[in-house]
Amino acid sequence: MIRRNITLLLFALLFNAPVFAQAEDSTALRNIYSEILANGKAYDWLRELSCDIGGRLSGSPEAAKAVEWTRKKLIEAGADTVYLQEVWVPHWVRGEKEKASIIDAQGFSQQVPICALGGSVATAKGGVTAQVIEVSNFDELEKLGEAGINGKIVFYNHPFDTKFINTFNAYGEAVEYRWKGPSMAAKYGAVGSIVRSMTLAQDDYPHTGSMRYVDSLPRIPCCAISTNGADLLSSILHASATTKFSFEMHCQSLDSVLSYNVIGEIRGAQFPEEVIVAGGHLDSWDTGDGAHDDGAGIVQSIEMIRTLSALAERPKRTVRMVAFMNEENGTKGGRKYAEVAEKSREKHVAAIESDAGGFVPFGLGLQMTDDKKSKVRRWSSLFLPYNIWNFDEEHGGADIGYLQQNMDTPLIGLVVESQRYFDVHHASIDTFDRINKRELLLGAATMTSIVYLLSEYGL
Amino acid sequence: MIRRNITLLLFALLFNAPVFAQAEDSTALRNIYSEILANGKAYDWLRELSCDIGGRLSGSPEAAKAVEWTRKKLIEAGADTVYLQEVWVPHWVRGEKEKASIIDAQGFSQQVPICALGGSVATAKGGVTAQVIEVSNFDELEKLGEAGINGKIVFYNHPFDTKFINTFNAYGEAVEYRWKGPSMAAKYGAVGSIVRSMTLAQDDYPHTGSMRYVDSLPRIPCCAISTNGADLLSSILHASATTKFSFEMHCQSLDSVLSYNVIGEIRGAQFPEEVIVAGGHLDSWDTGDGAHDDGAGIVQSIEMIRTLSALAERPKRTVRMVAFMNEENGTKGGRKYAEVAEKSREKHVAAIESDAGGFVPFGLGLQMTDDKKSKVRRWSSLFLPYNIWNFDEEHGGADIGYLQQNMDTPLIGLVVESQRYFDVHHASIDTFDRINKRELLLGAATMTSIVYLLSEYGL
Repeated sequence: MIRRNITLLLFALLFNAPVFAQAEDSTALRNIYSEILANGKAYDWLRELSCDIGGRLSGSPEAAKAVEWTRKKLIEAGADTVYLQEVWVPHWVRGEKEKASIIDAQGFSQQVPICALGGSVATAKGGVTAQVIEVSNFDELEKLGEAGINGKIVFYNHPFDTKFINTFNAYGEAVEYRWKGPSMAAKYGAVGSIVRSMTLAQDDYPHTGSMRYVDSLPRIPCCAISTNGADLLSSILHASATTKFSFEMHCQSLDSVLSYNVIGEIRGAQFPEEVIVAGGHLDSWDTGDGAHDDGAGIVQSIEMIRTLSALAERPKRTVRMVAFMNEENGTKGGRKYAEVAEKSREKHVAAIESDAGGFVPFGLGLQMTDDKKSKVRRWSSLFLPYNIWNFDEEHGGADIGYLQQNMDTPLIGLVVESQRYFDVHHASIDTFDRINKRELLLGAATMTSIVYLLSEYGL
Repeated sequence: MIRRNITLLLFALLFNAPVFAQAEDSTALRNIYSEILANGKAYDWLRELSCDIGGRLSGSPEAAKAVEWTRKKLIEAGADTVYLQEVWVPHWVRGEKEKASIIDAQGFSQQVPICALGGSVATAKGGVTAQVIEVSNFDELEKLGEAGINGKIVFYNHPFDTKFINTFNAYGEAVEYRWKGPSMAAKYGAVGSIVRSMTLAQDDYPHTGSMRYVDSLPRIPCCAISTNGADLLSSILHASATTKFSFEMHCQSLDSVLSYNVIGEIRGAQFPEEVIVAGGHLDSWDTGDGAHDDGAGIVQSIEMIRTLSALAERPKRTVRMVAFMNEENGTKGGRKYAEVAEKSREKHVAAIESDAGGFVPFGLGLQMTDDKKSKVRRWSSLFLPYNIWNFDEEHGGADIGYLQQNMDTPLIGLVVESQRYFDVHHASIDTFDRINKRELLLGAATMTSIVYLLSEYGL
């Protein structure tokens, strides 16, 4: 009898093992979400990072303050080891605020809101004034050619397509006019370029962002105009083709600056040599205070460290938060981290990035082999109670991208509601007051949960 | 040869029919979403309803204006028939702004933000001043009994549980202190009652809402206090139990007023006698401008009429928008509509309500038999491209609830992201600037899509 009972018990344990694990994991996730929703610090931390430090463009004093702030927070949050990783970053400054006006055929002038694109050269002193040519795409530009463009300012008026459900698709389609537009215009002799702001919102805020000059072409000053400004310019241009645009900008590219990735980890109890990275980027544009882009990702990852370091049992694998420097205008931090990781041959189980704003999460993007995707998707039912249902997106993140490039690391991106992101993205209204505490915390809890599962089971 | 080809063609048509329908429905939904995202008017309409008319409590001049405004919009939107349905509604007025202060043991007094609960009686002229007893639930109240409560003001300090993912669950658990609290306190001789505002936000805005007096008990004045105010009061009470609270309110219940449900429909081409109802409630509280609660539901339903009336083919079944009056403090409109529908024996295929704010939708709540639930869920894959994935919630809506009660009508509730709703719900910050255009339009497109499918196929 006794023997038979033991056999039965063993049998039950054996066959129920995966079910027990499922139940335990389910409890673990419930505890993670509850802890973060009830006691999460991410929101208060983000207030400090956004309001006390503010916008933190690479190379700025604010970026340096943010490095030190993150280092301290990681220690407070309970990381075993916290260190800085040297990164040389570009140092572009906006200088005195930009000015612009539209001058119609009658010589009547009205101001419009613009901002320099990141990396732009300044205008000549006193500004650039020239006739404007509006195009909605590169085909139109090429048809105009040198005859139509030379000596003029090119105005790329390519609105976001409102029909996409995921606003990142609209961004992906329009952003080439910001990124490549200035050099494409310079190729035909343009003296400046203006791009319609990358947003679905109709308002007066210009949205900055990076662009790249082609080395062989003249570097012309380039700016973004608010969507209201773009519509106004377009309507005045339609009334008279001789409309001029005048803008003055004082930006400058200075010498590179020594900056840092900030790294904090909890060493794994069973497989310390296997690393799970989770992070966001610490730099931001200078226009707002970078609350959504990407202060959110930073405080969510510190929250992950705080929560996992407080567990009764230490994570099985090493869990590491990385605050990447310089995502916005160079991704030098992402490159450097991957370079060092590759050289030291550290095994990276996976890397997770939160860089789509502190909005309510609904999925995990899986940029990895189909085999590994299936493994992650086996956990999907654990996430469903938290409205995390989408495991079909395929984007990881810009900073962690280099880990995959160098070492085939599987990448995971936190997928969040995208409707409001481009309202504030790279604009002066990307500020702390646009953050909802619970949306931010739900993102932190989702990131913490996937890191927890990866640390338990690997991939 | 010809004959064989025709046979093959017939065969193909026969067996592919359901597949074609799936593809056609998929295209129809794509067109609905695209039309609304690109050309939707709901956002501009909501600006008019919220900013030009404002808060529209039942019986108020604003509610009367909103009736006329909705009637006109429904005609503009292309409804065949637009009419008003008489509803007698309660007429409660807030009067002069409420005032309240906490008076500590030293007699030092500080003001705190309160608002009268809807339906409350006024205080005596000059206000009510009495000692405060804090309780976090009814058990504590009952233990104190008359000895502990008589002559005092009861302060229900029951915070929302932050651990729920769906914030409506937290509301459901806390709202009984607002609804039943005043009479429960009066039972033990309390002279007033205060309830912690129904919100997860930590701020200075009090949130009103309805309550009900038990007829056999004295009617005591009752108010909501902001969450910051509640925490302050609680901390002062912990320092000294002799702390007093003083508040003055000037609210009044006046005679009932004749008001209206506003109804607009597109008569069905094939089954005109089968009706699909979609709507929201036109009244709101007087504190804010009712943009989320429930201006959003109103303009989304008018958008549904605009979109379906512009289709190349008229809907097969009758599609009807109902703007219900008086959801907030009586649901007289919902009751009246169901009463009339029952008397006229109109066949209601289903009723849909949007009354959870103009936030991004992610599901349809199904309050109906399991059999009918399965039928709706067969359409779920059509909705997935729009991130509408959850068909497991079971709540329809307060106004349409009476249709089910009277006639077993299947109910559908638009399920939207709930994280930000209670930040603004019934507070002075439920205003148009808290609305995101795309989130609102996605809700309209989702409502329009389910109405379209119901009109094509019935249930």
